[in-house]
Amino acid sequence: MAEAIALGQAARGRTAPNPNVGCIIVRDGQPVGSGATERGGRPHAEAVALAQAGQRARGASLFTTLEPCAHRSHRGPACADLIVEAGVSRVVAALVDPDQRTAGDGLDRLRAAGVEVTAGTGEQGAAESLTGWLTRMRLGRPRITLKLALSIDGKIALPSGESKWITGEDARAHVHLERAHADMILVGRGTFLADQPRLDVRLPGLEEWSPRRALLTRGEPVEGWEILRSPQDVFRLHDVNDLLVEGGSSTATAFLAADLVDRILLYRAPILIGEGKSSVGYLGLDAIADAHGRWEPRDGRSLGIDRLEVYERVRT
Amino acid sequence: MAEAIALGQAARGRTAPNPNVGCIIVRDGQPVGSGATERGGRPHAEAVALAQAGQRARGASLFTTLEPCAHRSHRGPACADLIVEAGVSRVVAALVDPDQRTAGDGLDRLRAAGVEVTAGTGEQGAAESLTGWLTRMRLGRPRITLKLALSIDGKIALPSGESKWITGEDARAHVHLERAHADMILVGRGTFLADQPRLDVRLPGLEEWSPRRALLTRGEPVEGWEILRSPQDVFRLHDVNDLLVEGGSSTATAFLAADLVDRILLYRAPILIGEGKSSVGYLGLDAIADAHGRWEPRDGRSLGIDRLEVYERVRT
Repeated sequence: MAEAIALGQAARGRTAPNPNVGCIIVRDGQPVGSGATERGGRPHAEAVALAQAGQRARGASLFTTLEPCAHRSHRGPACADLIVEAGVSRVVAALVDPDQRTAGDGLDRLRAAGVEVTAGTGEQGAAESLTGWLTRMRLGRPRITLKLALSIDGKIALPSGESKWITGEDARAHVHLERAHADMILVGRGTFLADQPRLDVRLPGLEEWSPRRALLTRGEPVEGWEILRSPQDVFRLHDVNDLLVEGGSSTATAFLAADLVDRILLYRAPILIGEGKSSVGYLGLDAIADAHGRWEPRDGRSLGIDRLEVYERVRT
Repeated sequence: MAEAIALGQAARGRTAPNPNVGCIIVRDGQPVGSGATERGGRPHAEAVALAQAGQRARGASLFTTLEPCAHRSHRGPACADLIVEAGVSRVVAALVDPDQRTAGDGLDRLRAAGVEVTAGTGEQGAAESLTGWLTRMRLGRPRITLKLALSIDGKIALPSGESKWITGEDARAHVHLERAHADMILVGRGTFLADQPRLDVRLPGLEEWSPRRALLTRGEPVEGWEILRSPQDVFRLHDVNDLLVEGGSSTATAFLAADLVDRILLYRAPILIGEGKSSVGYLGLDAIADAHGRWEPRDGRSLGIDRLEVYERVRT
């Protein structure tokens, strides 16, 4: 299952509106087929893996991070049917599909056809790899990650606006990796005007993974950029699983104040700026006590001389 | 030597103006005496260890973090003489004393008396434990540590000034441990008026280690508090090895702008404050590039839900 999860995670950022599923087919202890959801969501991971396995799928075990779909569509047959037709004898699914069109029907159809079915194996890892899509299923909006590049003292720029460069090359390369796994990147109009950012993925081999670009602005549209008028517009993004908000301060504040950030990626450079632009503005906080219990540190590591801190919003 | 260093480190914060030396005497593989510089600087570590060893010092090896002193004073005899008299056959010193009154004379006197002498063993660890005193010898002022308790976004208080509590109990206990190893703690007048801080050590068994308290102010003196008129006054603190600057923002900024901070202890809570008081004010920075290369991350660890980051000033 770990391999299936890795395949699915690698496909993250280009399968929306579909989930980035990973699948591997094993026969006599040997992998005979593997795959992930293709760009744009079709074919599904199971179909890719089955096509690769061919006749070797007969009698084999199929591991998938998400329950195989039970719904036929004009874009392809139901994976549950494909699996039965291929003669797979055992299916291990990490997660049951929360999509109303499947929601257990896929596993039921497999069981009815005599396939041995196990669900729940590797559930946590699979859910992690599918967080974007799962968030959209649950909350009706993408999973939103806010990226901040800060000094020790929490500043993102000098009073003049100068912000290049706070973090070093390793941290910036990591940002590009995160971009590759996002379906859409958003900046505010201020950042757009100041930096004219390309927001593309500049990592060898991943250049084609550059996500869609969006602007948060009440002003004129810009060619090549999608427009969000307010953070609430994320509820209209039905084809975005993972949204990366890259700044600047006003945009970060707008999303945080609307409680529309699920995860903060904080790249911290070992420098002091002192007087300068704060990373975050007014959040409506009345007391320090009210600030506690909302964010949980989830990861921390060195990136060259900088440090990456990852916080996730605690939602109970 | 590791044991001698640990003994010396434990005595840090109460031996000024003398160094916090650690010493252990070993005979036939067994420790027969150990000690550290006593409160106020006398007796010296070697004298304490020799007194404990008594006759067992004859033919033994003595490990000390700093070269035994060669100068007699009205406060006690020279340690080099005591060691020779006790019949110690071998002395291992981590550091040669930079104090002009000794500066190798101690080791020379031992050698002249037929004692086998080794210097430089465990040098780095010993220098670490003696940083406060070594800084004073080298720069003519204490080693200065700045403590900051911040939110993720680098704020130390709400706009109202409310700052209790940003960090949790584990982080605050760690601050008390750092206080125990400081000779003096300093705050600004604003913090004094707002918080009426006791700045004492509230850790079981360490209550008596509370350091001297100082105020940075141009205003009226306050009973029980020593007064510094400006950060430059640290050059007049001839009896302080380790100075802990605890805030607030104006005081932190004054010390940083004067380049009189050697180490930053940063306690970071997983909260966002947004609009509020910044930790550091104007530092005279013209360009982001000028901020780089000054601070090196030296330590990082979790303290409950908070995180401690330690930065040291890079001085070339």
